[in-house]
Amino acid sequence: MEKYPLPLFNGMRNIKLTIEYDGRRYAGWQVQGKGAKTIQGALEKALYEILHKKLKVIGSGRTDAGVHAKGQVANFKTDSLIAPDRLRMALNAVLPADISILRAEEVSPDFHSRFSAKSKVYRYTILNRPSRPAILRGMVYFYPYSLDLALMRREARCLLGRHDFRSFQATDKKERGSVRKVKKVAILRDKELIHIGIEANGFLYNMIRNIAGTLIEIGRGKFPEGSIKRILGLKNRRFAGPNLPAKGLCLLKVNY
Amino acid sequence: MEKYPLPLFNGMRNIKLTIEYDGRRYAGWQVQGKGAKTIQGALEKALYEILHKKLKVIGSGRTDAGVHAKGQVANFKTDSLIAPDRLRMALNAVLPADISILRAEEVSPDFHSRFSAKSKVYRYTILNRPSRPAILRGMVYFYPYSLDLALMRREARCLLGRHDFRSFQATDKKERGSVRKVKKVAILRDKELIHIGIEANGFLYNMIRNIAGTLIEIGRGKFPEGSIKRILGLKNRRFAGPNLPAKGLCLLKVNY
Repeated sequence: MEKYPLPLFNGMRNIKLTIEYDGRRYAGWQVQGKGAKTIQGALEKALYEILHKKLKVIGSGRTDAGVHAKGQVANFKTDSLIAPDRLRMALNAVLPADISILRAEEVSPDFHSRFSAKSKVYRYTILNRPSRPAILRGMVYFYPYSLDLALMRREARCLLGRHDFRSFQATDKKERGSVRKVKKVAILRDKELIHIGIEANGFLYNMIRNIAGTLIEIGRGKFPEGSIKRILGLKNRRFAGPNLPAKGLCLLKVNY
Repeated sequence: MEKYPLPLFNGMRNIKLTIEYDGRRYAGWQVQGKGAKTIQGALEKALYEILHKKLKVIGSGRTDAGVHAKGQVANFKTDSLIAPDRLRMALNAVLPADISILRAEEVSPDFHSRFSAKSKVYRYTILNRPSRPAILRGMVYFYPYSLDLALMRREARCLLGRHDFRSFQATDKKERGSVRKVKKVAILRDKELIHIGIEANGFLYNMIRNIAGTLIEIGRGKFPEGSIKRILGLKNRRFAGPNLPAKGLCLLKVNY
């Protein structure tokens, strides 16, 4: 059962949301200039409808245009005393059909979706069969040629641990540091689907899509064995494989 | 490898297609009056673009508006000598994104998608969690309350074998016979999804959606144990559970 309400801190409660969304219609998570539809914008609009206050929703991190989530996390502060599970239901009643709140819970005042995150799990999904998708279109990257999964798995293991991932960073982005720690990596086949799952303490812009593109080049025999290690060492984006489309990417979970 | 071409029969070749579709935008499989978008209509239009002839495509059976397929089967006759796999690629290049041809193959002249079918496998999928779907919306039926799967499985076993399924037939349809043979039934949980799979030699109109609705009433405790047997015996639609929405239903396979 929910412990509700927690003692207020400065009169404010801190609410954590776990969110599923189909990113197809959105310009990504983060509120941008005028006009662009974003997940954060849709959430803030829905909260305004319910709580009648302009609240700022903090996400665990941005997801790009077209990227999906099954476990994005966000939090916001409110003085409303609404029970979290009632808020979940109210949000699901007013949010667009492609965004759903899976959980709402009150958390301690110092919880911060982004700064408190210990790791994130993303999954890149490839539809690997001769014919393009009908049912999963927009949710997977279609790749019709055969791939050497055993080789891809061996190569993916070279991503494990603390590395400078500059080679897998979008060329137009310069983040202050490009060292990240990859905690887990798994490549699974589920019939016609290939899932590349990666858990890390953080990700550079386009990092997973660049890694997935590189692993495909390896799996089809265009890049030789040893490429991941070599490309990591080169610290230069132009040696990595192509950046795969956003639609195959899904934020599965944020760990705290 | 394909044996191609087979000797012509009356100068015509018989082509079998295996088709995946997302049924959301369609008024079902079968060509109807003017205006309604159908899968059959989309296929015939695509074949006309490729082969420049008005061909009639025969499906294994109708699927209703909103019903999906991962393995619908259809066939048509043509005097074109195009290799079946080239035809598959050409069709996928001109068909709408929510229809995909998984296989095209030449079959013997007496193959008929409907009359040659030995059995069909349908699956009804329920999203069983507190929050509505975002990613799978339109592909599942959302049911937030807990269900007794063990009881549902015991009851579902009563469907096995040859029965008069009149109690599970749409009230406004009167087919000549209502006896069908259910060969397999399985209820599987995959995390938040519950799949009800049924294989039978044929299905009455709305039969699976009525059976799924009845199983849910049993699983939530509204109908007592023994209900499936009792309802089958009553041979009257009004004793069965509700007809669930089309979106949870998918034609998985047609066996020949």
